[in-house]
Order: sequence, then structure tokens, then C-alpha cells
Amino acid sequence: MTKLDVTTGSLPGSEKVFFGSDSHEDVSVAMRCIHLEGGERPVVAYDTSGPYSDPNAKIDIHKGLAPMRRQWILDRGDVVEYEGRDVKPEDNGLKSEGDQPGVEPFPRGDLKPLKSKNGEAVTQLAYARRNIVTPEMEYVAIRENEGRKEAYLRDGEPFGAEIPDVCTGEFVRSEIARGRAVLVSNVNHPELEPMIIGRNFLTKINANIGNSAVTSSVAEEVDKMVWSTRWGADTVMDLSTGTDIHNIREWILRNSPVPIGTVPIYQALEKCGGIAEDLTWEIFRDTLIEQAEQGVSYWTIHAGLLLEHVPLTVNRVTGIVSRGGSIMAKWCLHYHKQNFLWDHFDDICDIAKQYDVAISLGDGLRPGSIADANDEAQFAELRALGELQKKCMKHDVQCFIEGPGHVPMHKIKENMDLQLEVCDEAPFYTLGPLVTDIGAGHDHLASAIGAAMIGWYGCAMLCYVTPKEHLGLPNRDDVKEGVMAYKVAAHAADLAKGHPGARLRDDAMSKARFEFRWKDQFNLALDSEKALSFHDETLPAEGAKIAHFCSMCGPKFCSMRISHEVKEAAQQGMDEMAEKFKKEGGEIYKKIDAAQ
Amino acid sequence: MTKLDVTTGSLPGSEKVFFGSDSHEDVSVAMRCIHLEGGERPVVAYDTSGPYSDPNAKIDIHKGLAPMRRQWILDRGDVVEYEGRDVKPEDNGLKSEGDQPGVEPFPRGDLKPLKSKNGEAVTQLAYARRNIVTPEMEYVAIRENEGRKEAYLRDGEPFGAEIPDVCTGEFVRSEIARGRAVLVSNVNHPELEPMIIGRNFLTKINANIGNSAVTSSVAEEVDKMVWSTRWGADTVMDLSTGTDIHNIREWILRNSPVPIGTVPIYQALEKCGGIAEDLTWEIFRDTLIEQAEQGVSYWTIHAGLLLEHVPLTVNRVTGIVSRGGSIMAKWCLHYHKQNFLWDHFDDICDIAKQYDVAISLGDGLRPGSIADANDEAQFAELRALGELQKKCMKHDVQCFIEGPGHVPMHKIKENMDLQLEVCDEAPFYTLGPLVTDIGAGHDHLASAIGAAMIGWYGCAMLCYVTPKEHLGLPNRDDVKEGVMAYKVAAHAADLAKGHPGARLRDDAMSKARFEFRWKDQFNLALDSEKALSFHDETLPAEGAKIAHFCSMCGPKFCSMRISHEVKEAAQQGMDEMAEKFKKEGGEIYKKIDAAQ
Repeated sequence: MTKLDVTTGSLPGSEKVFFGSDSHEDVSVAMRCIHLEGGERPVVAYDTSGPYSDPNAKIDIHKGLAPMRRQWILDRGDVVEYEGRDVKPEDNGLKSEGDQPGVEPFPRGDLKPLKSKNGEAVTQLAYARRNIVTPEMEYVAIRENEGRKEAYLRDGEPFGAEIPDVCTGEFVRSEIARGRAVLVSNVNHPELEPMIIGRNFLTKINANIGNSAVTSSVAEEVDKMVWSTRWGADTVMDLSTGTDIHNIREWILRNSPVPIGTVPIYQALEKCGGIAEDLTWEIFRDTLIEQAEQGVSYWTIHAGLLLEHVPLTVNRVTGIVSRGGSIMAKWCLHYHKQNFLWDHFDDICDIAKQYDVAISLGDGLRPGSIADANDEAQFAELRALGELQKKCMKHDVQCFIEGPGHVPMHKIKENMDLQLEVCDEAPFYTLGPLVTDIGAGHDHLASAIGAAMIGWYGCAMLCYVTPKEHLGLPNRDDVKEGVMAYKVAAHAADLAKGHPGARLRDDAMSKARFEFRWKDQFNLALDSEKALSFHDETLPAEGAKIAHFCSMCGPKFCSMRISHEVKEAAQQGMDEMAEKFKKEGGEIYKKIDAAQ
Repeated sequence: MTKLDVTTGSLPGSEKVFFGSDSHEDVSVAMRCIHLEGGERPVVAYDTSGPYSDPNAKIDIHKGLAPMRRQWILDRGDVVEYEGRDVKPEDNGLKSEGDQPGVEPFPRGDLKPLKSKNGEAVTQLAYARRNIVTPEMEYVAIRENEGRKEAYLRDGEPFGAEIPDVCTGEFVRSEIARGRAVLVSNVNHPELEPMIIGRNFLTKINANIGNSAVTSSVAEEVDKMVWSTRWGADTVMDLSTGTDIHNIREWILRNSPVPIGTVPIYQALEKCGGIAEDLTWEIFRDTLIEQAEQGVSYWTIHAGLLLEHVPLTVNRVTGIVSRGGSIMAKWCLHYHKQNFLWDHFDDICDIAKQYDVAISLGDGLRPGSIADANDEAQFAELRALGELQKKCMKHDVQCFIEGPGHVPMHKIKENMDLQLEVCDEAPFYTLGPLVTDIGAGHDHLASAIGAAMIGWYGCAMLCYVTPKEHLGLPNRDDVKEGVMAYKVAAHAADLAKGHPGARLRDDAMSKARFEFRWKDQFNLALDSEKALSFHDETLPAEGAKIAHFCSMCGPKFCSMRISHEVKEAAQQGMDEMAEKFKKEGGEIYKKIDAAQ
């Protein structure tokens, strides 16, 4: 048996709660309820952690999560169970039939893949266009509201975003139908809790995991998935390369409460022994089917990097920095042929729509340095992605667009605006952007600056960057640092856009801060565990958690404590004293009167 | 003897170099020269670390640094050495004559304070207005150029900043005379290396250190000063409270290569046993003189928080979060009198100008939560600070303005623009701003987002926030994390503003990245040590530092390696192949021709 330990247990100070639906009785949305002290109303928060943070859930990694969506999918009557493709040795990077994978297969039992019954689109986009509000859409609507029944507050600069006071299933449907949002949900990943990506919803974040040829194992990767969703990753991309990727992916998928994305060209290239020139449409197509049957919910496909774009990269400071992009560029040049992903894009859509795999249109030419930001190569590819977006819509295939990389602050908005324009507001999904090249060791931070800004400007999902970016493969701690940096960035974006629910938790936090409710502060923090441990480094005693000061300033200099005295004095005595002082002809009270 | 260990030694891969002046033969500006491999030109970088990173310097903490500026100051002939004020027990928080301080005094020997000979202003502002380019101004000009003799590149959105291609002593003078920049340099801190704060110069950062009543010691504080300047702090504020603050400050000052700022009300309050109501102008005045004689280069003075502003804070979510602000508000309310710092502002200026202490106009009403951002309390005080700025200018006292706190992204620019308007473009110096309230444990990051943006919009100096903000007192590691976060933010701001030298290091870094010069990448990173240690976590072998891949993707998937092959192929074969293909009537080459 593969030994797999994953983190379970309630989130700090929180209870797993479930919200039902008025229209769909089988929809029950898991949420995190943060209980507060002092008679304060609890705060309901979006929860990506799945059953792992539910003490009542039985977790068995070898069985996987319950297939919550399976009945919804079957009830639609448009999919069929079938034998599926045989797993081949090369799927796990093995050279011949006799070789054994390093990672045992997930015990699927008699689980068989589903696909479209008659080749028609079984996508949320197809349903949305037929005016059907699916259970998934209803789930998403409830989830986005975080327990609100009305707007908490409207304050922000939305730059054209149109976020309603309260999200409804119908609104979710209309945004999907319009191509402005994507509900990533392969029919073969019924374990996922539906989520949505779009500028008129909460800003999402993605965490990349995956072994590389140099390091890491399946146990680590499954744990990284559970760990990253525990702290807020909305989707996870499995970027594994090397051997065992089929088996690792299956372990991840069967245990993942969030949609899983991949870059299929990585696996296809493994099947060709790493020789880009040996890539063929047939190998790639077979890989797509392999992954679709397993339950991958979105594929990054670098179909917009065209042969004619390659010369545009020759004088760049950092050339092509996307792995998939460089592979395709090499292929194109070798044969002097157009990118076969571009040529076969209709075929790709035809597969995607039969499983509801969304296509994440890859930015093979994203800039890898400030010097290359917003150059002709980048924008030429973006325009090609805009053409592919229209093809996806034609096929009823959900899609979103990948972007940024390294972009200085003053060039971020130009990126966002061009994407909105040429891609008809299809969701933008960006790496960072990093706002400087010299942040190595702190690139989670250098990129969180750009991520917060592009999120504000309209980007729907932010792909995290860890502190190890440019230097090595992230470990568990790095994954958490990356996730937290991006939770901060995404939330900052929601606040600035004026999301009608975003400030509720900030206000609860600040009120707790002003009232010295330390435990509430820890629990309301995005990183409850670190907040607690930092506090306890200096003041570990239990009593310090009710103290009206902290170690930053000590009791005498606590501005908040003094501020309470000021508030009391101002409320009680100000009027009286003012009256007295006014009678004596005090100057300053004239100013107050004038200001009022 | 106090045992004090501080970090010394060259910065990674770097040499301390000195740049002379054509006009001032006694000016020699220390800079950091980062040597590169592969025949690349070295990169000259701004260096705040002082003699500690110079292997040829003799460091003796008990003697302090060499008083480089002393002769320049004496040569002006406008200051006089005098006996100075006696150190009193209460300066160190002691109750009576017999008590012994916990920290022994720094051995001053026969060092006596200097002050203005005849009460006239001996400030850089006064000289600038008399058209004198002081050695300090010349030093700053050379320093700002980082070895450049021309603009490296002009690219950015300056939002009204007017940064010249190359900085000259005359430009520095004109900016100071205009009140748009401040050269903080108390005549009693001749050890400091002159630096300038202003929107038309490199964006600066400040690190706060200082013990609190709850924790830390003198050894730690001096080390934190050396440590924070090693990584890039341009100024350091000593926010010590409790006992021994006079002695701790002296140790810091005598050993500091950067200007030291304080908040004098903290010490004044200590002298009153922590009772705000017992504060008097006399105690405050005496504290100013005490600190001016020691060499403090700037004081945060909360003179713009007026009695009439206090009621504006009553309905705030987090009231008054500035320590100095809350103390003054309490005092004002207790007596129902106007803030005595406002009433005595001319007297304060009169002291400041005799030592060239700059006044940092404190924002006692900065918002402590997103809910309170940009409210009437905050902006009413900012307008009062604008009035005080004009008073400073009248007295030839250098000044800058403190701002932000917690501000969501969409309200940052409004802050900056109002400050520029009401304070005549006097330098803005902001804490963060934090763009959300729920980042506890990661508030260095939550605030670096806001800091980068406000720096871009025109803020001259960014006051760092450490990961311990809101939770506890930062230790050495936290100080470094805070400094690095702010170096990233400040540099990102310089890039976005289009500072003509900013991108040089980014481009050198990216070129090193593309050429797999790993050691150069580590050395060019803002945090050279962390970059190296992260890389070595996975690939510690010396050979990996010349490898054409890293542990992120492994050799097979290295986009940069493939990119080199693509570049070669594109350069060598593209034309030839294109020719061939064109003859055969290839579609895509028509597009290339059209694009050219």
C-alpha cells in the first residue's frame, strides 16, 4: 500500500457548514463558518478545503472522495459509461510492457469513464445556452454568496466588471452562456465541488504542484494538493513530468475537491522520450483522451503560438520561457510547419466537449523578463488566442486565456485591457505578473503585487508563484507561502473591484482587533495558523490572548487601548466640554461647527 | 563591556567601490559593484550597508563609525561645539539619580554636540535656497546615478514625476530648495552617508527597529540596524520605548551609516511615567534637544492631529491606531485644548533648524482598517499637515509627510494625489498601505502591494511592515523579510515610474538567467543569500551552478534551454527555410511579410 498522510481536521476556530438550495434539493454547499467571541455574528467564508476539514467526513485516500456530482451528471442523460482507453506503459513513462511503475495505480475498482452519448457537447456552456441552470451552477451561486442574502457593501472601482449584489443560478448561467465565466467540471471528476472562474465572481487562485524529473514523489504530490486547497487554492494544476504521471494524476484526481488542470504536452513529450520533433497529433490526441477519461477539468494548450510568431522571439532577452511554448516552437521550426495544435484545434474541441474539459489557451510567449513585457510576440499570440476563443465558443467548449509572466506595473493594465477586447471578456488566467526580475527568493511577493493589480483590473484567476520560483521545486512550506500570497492578492483585488461581500471579513477582523479579541483575529486571518504562532512567539501565555495589548507596543503604548479611552471621553464629555468651551469663545469649536 | 556582534563582510559577489566627484574633491561615494561572469559588465548598485560590508574597514562598535561629514559641517563655519544638555536619569527611564541604566552609555569620550552658531538655520534647505551645492548634495547626486553617466532607458508612467536622465548636485539642490526633496542629515550624525528622499529620486525604504516594554535588548537593536541596512534600509527609525532609550539610541547613532528617525513623543511619555495628561511642552522640548544633540535626523511629530479632528474618529472601526496620535488625542481631550505640538510648531522648527533635523509630519489619524481608509479624519489631518509643511518651509526646516496605513487598492491614488496637492509635492512617506485587513502573518506582503503602487504614484519613501505586524515584535528574520518585501516594492515602483537607471539590474539578471549564469543570478537578486540557499536546497552540487537547467523543470523541460535551440534554428535556418517554403507558396510566410 502506498503510504499517504494528508492533513485533516477543522480549520482553526471553524465549523464545516452546509447551505441548501431552494431550487435544487440535492445541492448542499460546504462552507466554512468562523465562530467569533463577544456575541459577534459568525463569518461564513468560501471553503476550498473539501471534506478534509470536515471532522465528520471519513477520509480514505485509497478510496478517494465521494462522487458528489455523479448523479447530477447521469441525470442529464447525455453521457454513457464505456470501457475507455487501456493504460499503456508509456502513460507512466515506462519503456516496455514488462517495466513496473514506481507508483502503484489508484485502485479504481470497476470505475469506468463517462463520455458524451452521441458526440454532442455535454458542457456547462452547452447547458447554459439551452437556458438550463444545472445543479453545478446553483452550487456555484450559493458558494459565491458566502452566506449573504444581500450585498454587504458596495465600494470599489470595478473597471467594467458587473458583479451583482447577490449571485443566483441564473446569473451564473448567463455568464457562462456569454463566455464570460467557466465552470470547470469534467464529467469524470464527480468528486469536485463546483467552482467558477470569471471576472464577475470572486477572484480565484491556482496552485501548481507536480514532481519533476529531479525530485519528489506521489505521496508528496497528493499531500501538496490537499495542503494547498486547505489554505485556499481554487484549482490545482498537476505539472508532473518524468515517470508515473498517469498514476500520480489518478491519485490526485480521485482525492481532489477542486478541479485539476494539466498541460498535456508535457505528458505527450514524455511519450516521445523528450524529443519535441517526435511529437505527433496522434500522440497528443491519445494523451487528451487519456486525461479526459481520468477527469482532468482543464488543459493548457499552446495552440496560439504560431510559426510566424517564433521569429518575433529571437531578439528577446529571455526568449521563450513557457515550457509548452518552447516545445511547440521547436516543433514548428523543425518541420517549418504550422503548430499542429492550431491546425487540429477543431479536433481538440471535439474531444473537450464530450467530457466537458475546459481549454486554457496557453500563453507560450509570455514574457520571462521585464524587458520582454508587452512585446509584439506576446500580443501577437494573444490575438491568436482571441481567434481560438471564438472557435471554442462555436464548439460549446468552455475556455479561458492564459497571460502575463514578467510585467512592470505600468504595463499591466494594457495587458488586461487587450485581453478583454480580443477575447470577448473570456476569463483571463495569469501567472503573477512579476513586477521585477530581481526578486529571486521572494518572487511569490514580487508576483503577488502584479497579481493583485491585474485581479483588480479584471483577471479572473491568478496562478500562484512560490518563493522558489526560478530557483527550485517548491516544497510543502513553499506551496503554503505561495497560496497565502495569492489569497492576499485575490482578496485585495475583490476589495478594490468592490465585490459586494469582500469587506465583511476585513471589517470583522478589524472590529476584533479594536476589541482585543485575539482568537478571533487569528481565526479571521487568511493564515490562521501563522497568525497564532507569530503572536505566541513573544506572548505564549493563554492570558495574553485576552490582553488589551500585544508585544509590538506593550501595554503603555497601545494606541488601540488609548483609542478606547479617547472614544469614551469623546462620546461622554465632548459635548459638555464643547458647550463650556464655546461659551468661553473657544476658537476650535467654531471649526467643528463649520465642518459639520 | 557590552557584547555586540554585528554582521560584517562583503555582500555576495560584490566589491565595495568608491566614486569621486569632479567638483568636490573630498566626496567619495561608497557603492556596491556586482561582478559578473561571461565577460559581462559589472552592475553598480546603490549600497546602504555602510562600512560593514567593506572588508577594508575596521569595525569597532565601541568606537562607532568614522565621522565622514564632520569636516564638511565645520567648514561651513555656521555651527559651534557646546557642552550640551546633561543626560538625566529619566532620559533612560530611570526614576532617580541613584538608579543604574541596564545599558551602559556609549563611550562618547570628549565628543560634544554641535548646533547653529547664531540660531540661524544650518539646514540643507537653507543652503539650497542660497544656491549652495553642499558636499552632501554632491554625494547624493553621485549615489543616485549608481555609476551611470547617461540614462540607461526611459520607459514608464511617471504620473508627474520629473526624474532627469542623470542626477547632478545642482538638481539635488533645486529639488531641496523647492521643498520636493529632503536630505536628512543632523549635524550631530556626521557618520551617516548622505541620502535623499523625494519623488524624483530612487524610492527609499525605512525599517523600524526598537525594543518595546515587553522584549529585546541593545545588542539586538544595534544588530537589527546593521542587519536592516545590509539588506537595503535607507533610513532606520528607532522606536524604542521603556528604559534605556537614550543609551540604546546613542549606540545605534554612533554606528549607523543611515539617518536615524524617532518619534520623540514616545520618550517624552516615558518621562511622564506613561501618563499622557502629564505631557508638557517643556518635557517635549527638552526631549527634542536631547535627541537633536545625539544626532537624530528626523522626528515624527504628530502636530497635525487637532482637537477638532478627534470627534471624527469616534465612529471609526479601529479608532486611532497611531501610537503618537492616540497619545496626543488623549492629551487634547483631557484638557480640551489644542494639540500643544500644533501650538508650539514654530518653536519646534526653531530647534530643528539649528541642528538640521527634518520633521516627518506624523499621521496620527492614519486608517487602521480598510473601513476607515480615506475618511474625513484622515484627510482633515492631511490638510493640516499641508499647513505645517508651509511653516517648515518658512523656517528653512526640511520636512516630509507621513501617510497611509490600511487602504484598499482603489483608494491609494486618491491619497497620493491629495498629498501632492495640499503639501506642495513635499515627499510622502507611507506605512504600506496594507491592501486588506486579513493578511496577519503575511502583512509585509499585504502592505508591499500597496507600497509598490503608492511608490509608483509618487510616494518617496516606504516604511516597511514585517510579517509580525499586528502580532508581535519583529526579530532579525522578520526584519529581513520586511526589508526585502520593501526593496521589491520600491524597485517595482522605480521601474513603473520609468526611473532611467532602474531596469539595468533587471536586464542583467534576465540575461544571466537566459545564459544559465547561476552565480550571477544569485548575486544580482535583491536577496542574494536566499536565492542561493533556495537553489542549493535541491541542487547543492557545485556543478549545478553551471548546469543548463534547474530543479524546477529538470533538463528535458527547460524552456530556456530549448529556447536557445529555437533561437539558433530561427537565426540560421529561418531565412533559408522560409525562402524554400515561400517558393512552395506557404501561407504563413505571407503573414510574416505583412507583419514586418
